[in-house]
Amino acid sequence: MSTWTDNLTMDTMARERANPPFDVRKMSIEHHGSENNLVKKEKFMLEASRDPVFYSADIYDLTTEQIRERTMQRIQRLAHYVTSESVDDFQKRMELMSLLDPGLWTRLGVHYGLFLGAIRSGATPNQFSYWMEKGLIGCNGMFGCFGMTELAHGSNVAGLETTAHFDAQTDEFVIHTPNLGATKWWIGGAAQTATHCSVFAQLIVNGKRYGTKTFIVPLRDPKTFQLLPGINIGDIGKKMGRDGIDNGYIQFTNVRIPRAYMLMKHTQVTRDGEVREPPLQQLTYGALLQGRTAMVSDAANTAKKALTISVRYAAARRQFKSDANAKHETQILDYPIHQRRLMPLVAQAVAFGYTSLELQRLFEETSQALEALEPGDPNLDATIEKLKETHSTSAGLKAFCTWATLENIDRSRQACGGHGYSSYNAFANMYSDFAVHCTWEGDNTILALQSGRFLISAFQDALDGKKQVSQGTMYMNDLDKVLTAKCESNVALDTLDGIDRGWATVAAHAVKKASEDYQACLKKGRSREQAFEDCSQVRFVAASVHTSGYIFRQFRSAVERVEKTNDGVREHLELLAKFYGLWQMEEKAAFFLRSGWLTPEQLDYATAKVTEYCEKTRSFVIPLVDSFAISDHVLNSPIGRYDGDIYREYFRMVRRNNPQLKEHPYFERLIRPFIERATSEIEDFDEAIGIDDEIEEIKQDREEAEAEAKAQAEENKKQ
Amino acid sequence: MSTWTDNLTMDTMARERANPPFDVRKMSIEHHGSENNLVKKEKFMLEASRDPVFYSADIYDLTTEQIRERTMQRIQRLAHYVTSESVDDFQKRMELMSLLDPGLWTRLGVHYGLFLGAIRSGATPNQFSYWMEKGLIGCNGMFGCFGMTELAHGSNVAGLETTAHFDAQTDEFVIHTPNLGATKWWIGGAAQTATHCSVFAQLIVNGKRYGTKTFIVPLRDPKTFQLLPGINIGDIGKKMGRDGIDNGYIQFTNVRIPRAYMLMKHTQVTRDGEVREPPLQQLTYGALLQGRTAMVSDAANTAKKALTISVRYAAARRQFKSDANAKHETQILDYPIHQRRLMPLVAQAVAFGYTSLELQRLFEETSQALEALEPGDPNLDATIEKLKETHSTSAGLKAFCTWATLENIDRSRQACGGHGYSSYNAFANMYSDFAVHCTWEGDNTILALQSGRFLISAFQDALDGKKQVSQGTMYMNDLDKVLTAKCESNVALDTLDGIDRGWATVAAHAVKKASEDYQACLKKGRSREQAFEDCSQVRFVAASVHTSGYIFRQFRSAVERVEKTNDGVREHLELLAKFYGLWQMEEKAAFFLRSGWLTPEQLDYATAKVTEYCEKTRSFVIPLVDSFAISDHVLNSPIGRYDGDIYREYFRMVRRNNPQLKEHPYFERLIRPFIERATSEIEDFDEAIGIDDEIEEIKQDREEAEAEAKAQAEENKKQ
Repeated sequence: MSTWTDNLTMDTMARERANPPFDVRKMSIEHHGSENNLVKKEKFMLEASRDPVFYSADIYDLTTEQIRERTMQRIQRLAHYVTSESVDDFQKRMELMSLLDPGLWTRLGVHYGLFLGAIRSGATPNQFSYWMEKGLIGCNGMFGCFGMTELAHGSNVAGLETTAHFDAQTDEFVIHTPNLGATKWWIGGAAQTATHCSVFAQLIVNGKRYGTKTFIVPLRDPKTFQLLPGINIGDIGKKMGRDGIDNGYIQFTNVRIPRAYMLMKHTQVTRDGEVREPPLQQLTYGALLQGRTAMVSDAANTAKKALTISVRYAAARRQFKSDANAKHETQILDYPIHQRRLMPLVAQAVAFGYTSLELQRLFEETSQALEALEPGDPNLDATIEKLKETHSTSAGLKAFCTWATLENIDRSRQACGGHGYSSYNAFANMYSDFAVHCTWEGDNTILALQSGRFLISAFQDALDGKKQVSQGTMYMNDLDKVLTAKCESNVALDTLDGIDRGWATVAAHAVKKASEDYQACLKKGRSREQAFEDCSQVRFVAASVHTSGYIFRQFRSAVERVEKTNDGVREHLELLAKFYGLWQMEEKAAFFLRSGWLTPEQLDYATAKVTEYCEKTRSFVIPLVDSFAISDHVLNSPIGRYDGDIYREYFRMVRRNNPQLKEHPYFERLIRPFIERATSEIEDFDEAIGIDDEIEEIKQDREEAEAEAKAQAEENKKQ
Repeated sequence: MSTWTDNLTMDTMARERANPPFDVRKMSIEHHGSENNLVKKEKFMLEASRDPVFYSADIYDLTTEQIRERTMQRIQRLAHYVTSESVDDFQKRMELMSLLDPGLWTRLGVHYGLFLGAIRSGATPNQFSYWMEKGLIGCNGMFGCFGMTELAHGSNVAGLETTAHFDAQTDEFVIHTPNLGATKWWIGGAAQTATHCSVFAQLIVNGKRYGTKTFIVPLRDPKTFQLLPGINIGDIGKKMGRDGIDNGYIQFTNVRIPRAYMLMKHTQVTRDGEVREPPLQQLTYGALLQGRTAMVSDAANTAKKALTISVRYAAARRQFKSDANAKHETQILDYPIHQRRLMPLVAQAVAFGYTSLELQRLFEETSQALEALEPGDPNLDATIEKLKETHSTSAGLKAFCTWATLENIDRSRQACGGHGYSSYNAFANMYSDFAVHCTWEGDNTILALQSGRFLISAFQDALDGKKQVSQGTMYMNDLDKVLTAKCESNVALDTLDGIDRGWATVAAHAVKKASEDYQACLKKGRSREQAFEDCSQVRFVAASVHTSGYIFRQFRSAVERVEKTNDGVREHLELLAKFYGLWQMEEKAAFFLRSGWLTPEQLDYATAKVTEYCEKTRSFVIPLVDSFAISDHVLNSPIGRYDGDIYREYFRMVRRNNPQLKEHPYFERLIRPFIERATSEIEDFDEAIGIDDEIEEIKQDREEAEAEAKAQAEENKKQ
């Protein structure tokens, strides 16, 4: 009866998995860093999929209020794990939560990441114990929010305007919002959840300003949730995404807190108003790293989630027959252009995965070094150097990985055509939830510029003969050679080493250009800051090129650590790494041509290789996305289902979430008066039943016209 | 008391407007094509801003159900104008509606654009009269929807599976959905509004299939809105955007309609089952053009809307002081990198505006030529040629302009930092509403490929010596010269003519590459269709480069038509045109280097020029976005307000839409049990009041460590 049979999509998907050219389980372990990590993730996914609190099929139709309430239920559930499992396990669980419910991740992260993080990094041991006793760890008795940004200040933390005057008479600080622009804004958890806030405010003692410090300010009575005197909190309402977070604004009007509520690990204010400032300002850097590390890993995971959906849909969906005799229409994944749309993004997602594992390692290493540090430590300089580099690397990665993933989500959506636009297939929320990653914890453009600034100074060091020791900037050693290097042959171009050298050369050129422009600005008499501003565009470009190369290098190193066995894993990862490196080369082709590293002919070769790798990757891409190990429950997208039963499940989900209404919601009120109204412009009615007369007329007209045209044509021929 | 004064943002904005270097009104007239167009738009904006039905400040917090109802109210209001003003005026009004309320535009457009359009292009005169009498024009008595796409078929219209069997006995068609995949899907208006549907179905007469034809099928009784027998309609629910449209699915189960309900202008079925097929298949092209033309214009208008907000915010927002002695922080618009983020997009939006005016003209010209056409007409070939070219041009423009604007919206959002992420500042909805433009009425990638296919055939014609007559492909005449051209100097590079020649050369190279790859595939024995698939990536690239050049050329021509007077208009438009052309050159630099048109040094010059134009454009960008003439009501974004009073109005809007609740929505139910629960892991309490002892200890430790470090340092010096 029909060319479309109900099981075709499922049969197709099964066939795609019939002969994977690599051991899918081993590949999956590779992506996750260890078998242990993978097993834990699977455990967490299973628990979530069976827990009614994590039921998600109805999520796309909830109102903001309903989502917030659902999120609170989930917070309650997760709080159980905080106190019952290891920190490492809980962090892994949260990483999964970020993929399943980004609003939840943030709302809980505000307490555990930001608020608790502020206290851990800023409190003295006694202060820390005090807040522990108040319920900091288990959220029993208190829930924290993080009061940094204000309506008129975000990036410029030093410019925040909330004040904290020390009142020596009462031994208290007076926290105050001096004007509308100083209203704390975007404070997650403030509107409905938080009892306390870590407030960033200008410390003022005896009329003197000491800069921005952190103060713990009680907001609500935990027994009644009534606002405390002097606290004005409001809901800031609808956001692009992450509706589960109850962001609010806070205005303080002469709110008094005990002196001991200022976090005093670094700066201290004594009973008589003496202010002691810390010798090691840089160490507050550490706190920023954790957020960025988490975001790079979220970028990798979210990219994999989006691609699991779009790639599976492309395998199941058929459209047009390439051959009229074919039994079925062609899978859209078999069209070269569709491969071009999705396959490079798959390689990129895998690259981001390895990069995030490496950044995680770097972050832990740096954190440990920082924690071990004592004032006057002989390792101080080296540690600070290391910290600066990690800081710059994480800044660049956070910026370019979150940008790329945001783009990936929308490309994946577009690759699913109309069905990608339905909320039930997950892309809409994925995009709007993810988008904020490009803005918070450092606007991406500003972070990219920070990375560029670091690169300029590393380049200057390299020129001055100081050897670069970190893997990230090692290409700057032996500059003369790197800057004049050329790709020796097409064969070299298609090797991990060749691609790596290409990126080194191109990154060196981009950084050199930025440095030269910077130096030229200095020579023109511009201050350092002005010079950096003047050359911000080249700085940005340097960071962009450097970061692509850095990501490729992480991928390459990871691949080269994989055992050489017969399971096909290393071989396919190597293919993906070359694919990523060459595709990025094509994307940034102008730099490769300019630097002289590639000739136009070699660029053509690279392009042809990318097309070839698209086709090759297509052949194993279903097992590959399977190895990303994201459950149907976490995907929450019928067209991305594992079993390929996409249409039936999509139809079921749409029906379940949109039950037939008993009556039309506004027919009597709006439609009837509209559709039954009288208008005066009705034209005369001509019996439609006259269709046969009309067909006859049209026939005759057409025949006459055709005869005439024929006569005309013969006439023309004669001439 | 504070460095932030309430009127600073307003004073700043006033200063930005103090000395515009061009006549703002005349500039505005230029953007709108004529003074008449501008005056009309202003009239429509004023009417909308005062009409309670178009109140929009609460729109971001409405539920889907509320938005649909609001949209219905607006439809009712607009229907008044359909029958009371000229078609041209109503189209202009709708263009504005698209900017104010994209869901409304679509929901009404489904009836007036698609349903009525299907009848107009497919019905015989008698049939048209019949539906007119039923209320087609005024929506009184009927409201139509457009039943083309199915769950399993979108792009492949010929592959649709809904069937229309002719039953000769009863003189009826039987409309039927043979399987789940054939369910009509995404049908705007089906869920709550439509009484009739223009159904695309496979015509089957006496067992023979005649391909996809259109049938008008009644869905609901207009008196009761009950579904008619055999009709199953459901709501397809939540979408990424445009919630005002009530998209639904429709399943037909042996639904009988009179034979005369098949649209028979082209194909006819007679009483006894004879099928007459039309001689001029191509002419259905025409219908597609209107949608695309509207989308290019929507891309230009929406880009201007997004930029009006982000640019005004960048002028009002201050962050960081570049000079410690400065009275205020720096306007973010003054940072070179922020100029780089937004100014090229402003030039692009202006370019899109002129392109859309030109496409409009082309569309009208083509439509008139088509309407004037008779079978056997001697102008037939020329008209079809013209139609093909307009078709290809509009396909490329629809694809690349909607992509660029979607990107622009998100870049504008990001340029507004956190406040861009608040729904109240309009970007969230703008993005999710606009995103569907990349998918519907032809997926962008597929359209780009169509444009690429046309370019390959035009190139082949050019090689064969056939002169290209259309402005779009004229650069293919005299190929030898174009392909070997080089930019003669930096001076030439910075002229409209020089840039134009550059784009011609680069486009010619890109099309040549696509043609050669295509020919190579044919030589390898691939079929035409296979060859086109194989070279889809180069085809895509050719379309992309060609379209950038095309847009520049439209901008250039428009500028050169502007009178040379002393009002500064032409001079500044010329600057913007060069800016756009050079910036796109920088974006697609690899093609310019490869083609040999630019040397690396010239590319550096182009980049420097782009930076310079960013700075220049910044100096007049506030008057420029003012000249886009988009009212505060249409912007509906407090941070984009004309008067610069951004913080107060944003705060007010947030408060108005999120009134204080009388009680916490779930404190007793969820928060109290959570926050008051007992946990067993509480650590010992250490009196926080011991802060002073602790400060003392920290002091001593620090002093000792510093002394030690000093001693160590001196020790080191000695060595």
